Amino acid sequence: MARQERAIRTRRKILVVAAKVFDQVGYEATTISDILDQSGLTKGALYFHFGSKEELAQAVLAEQVAALPKVPPQDLKLQEALDEGMLLAHLLTGEDGDPIIQGSIRLTVDQGSPKDNLDRKVPMQGWINHSLELFAEARENGEVLPHADLDAFARLFAGCYTGVQVLSRIMTDREDLAERMADLYRNLMPALAVPAVLVRLDFSPTRGALVYERVMREHEAEVVSV
Amino acid sequence: MARQERAIRTRRKILVVAAKVFDQVGYEATTISDILDQSGLTKGALYFHFGSKEELAQAVLAEQVAALPKVPPQDLKLQEALDEGMLLAHLLTGEDGDPIIQGSIRLTVDQGSPKDNLDRKVPMQGWINHSLELFAEARENGEVLPHADLDAFARLFAGCYTGVQVLSRIMTDREDLAERMADLYRNLMPALAVPAVLVRLDFSPTRGALVYERVMREHEAEVVSV
Repeated sequence: MARQERAIRTRRKILVVAAKVFDQVGYEATTISDILDQSGLTKGALYFHFGSKEELAQAVLAEQVAALPKVPPQDLKLQEALDEGMLLAHLLTGEDGDPIIQGSIRLTVDQGSPKDNLDRKVPMQGWINHSLELFAEARENGEVLPHADLDAFARLFAGCYTGVQVLSRIMTDREDLAERMADLYRNLMPALAVPAVLVRLDFSPTRGALVYERVMREHEAEVVSV
Repeated sequence: MARQERAIRTRRKILVVAAKVFDQVGYEATTISDILDQSGLTKGALYFHFGSKEELAQAVLAEQVAALPKVPPQDLKLQEALDEGMLLAHLLTGEDGDPIIQGSIRLTVDQGSPKDNLDRKVPMQGWINHSLELFAEARENGEVLPHADLDAFARLFAGCYTGVQVLSRIMTDREDLAERMADLYRNLMPALAVPAVLVRLDFSPTRGALVYERVMREHEAEVVSV
């Protein structure tokens, strides 16, 4: 393994372990020693990549949007937006859970202390920008109601998504997350999509697991073909 | 002042100060000494009312729903529901901010530690039940679309409300909260209300401040008439 590749893997490993610890106990209670203990790495290896706990947390926050795999393209851009949301919900729960996404979302939602200096705007602005791009493509495709304010919608989706996730965590430890998220899209999409698109969208709660399977299959196919 | 009344006031004072400290630094970082320092009360007075930090936090969580004042009755029950949401948003911000609501909502949303034993379901279930009652009355009034699943809607509103609030805090320190909340209701209500009701609802972002003024005026009138 080339030195650079090894460095990338080590950095990745540190991020994953840090995200797990942040998710378990929150930013305040996390210590660098916890992360070292759980990663089995030396202090030197960790500090080579990250100068402080704050830097580590900021890196986990920065990875949040990129940690969501690209979903298979769809005829309807709004189905792609929905697929992303349902895939993200899938990655927040169960066996297929993604530690970077889970830890990063906790870092974002926890109010923290003004002294912690974490910039929680980074992932939120990332989601808003990303949704806005998808919605703009959907508008070009003729999928969006003419009066819809896409900027306001991108914000609204980011907000509602966050809260539906928080509520599901509190009430059912995210067991009903896929169902609640499907409900969110079912009730918000009519304010964004034209009726002819609306009836073609797949709002089923199992959509996230299905998209996940497809993403994994494509990923395996790529690895084989390399 | 009768002894009982004094005890009620002291309990209230402790709850308000505790909620402020919880809101500032979160549950983990809060200590009983912080609360004592900021309240000016003795350890004995505090422990007379609350046995531990956990008990205090649970009491702050339990007060969340009750801390929202009763809004003036409206012809449309869905306007009352909207008024409550906009009033709550008003009480989360600025000069009229309510410390119990602010501190309690932080305690609810912060993920905390499994070891902290806080039951964050209490306020969330409280909001869901409360919305469900209002929506059921709205249905009796003929305000609700026949196919609407009120139970799912009560959950959806609680989730979306929570997240819109979190996003507004992260992005603008709640400065755009009233606007974002009005946006939420404008986009979700069409999935719940019949069109004839929808066009009569006041979705303006200033609604929360207006309702607050009315509530205060009624409260003053009551105090005078006693």
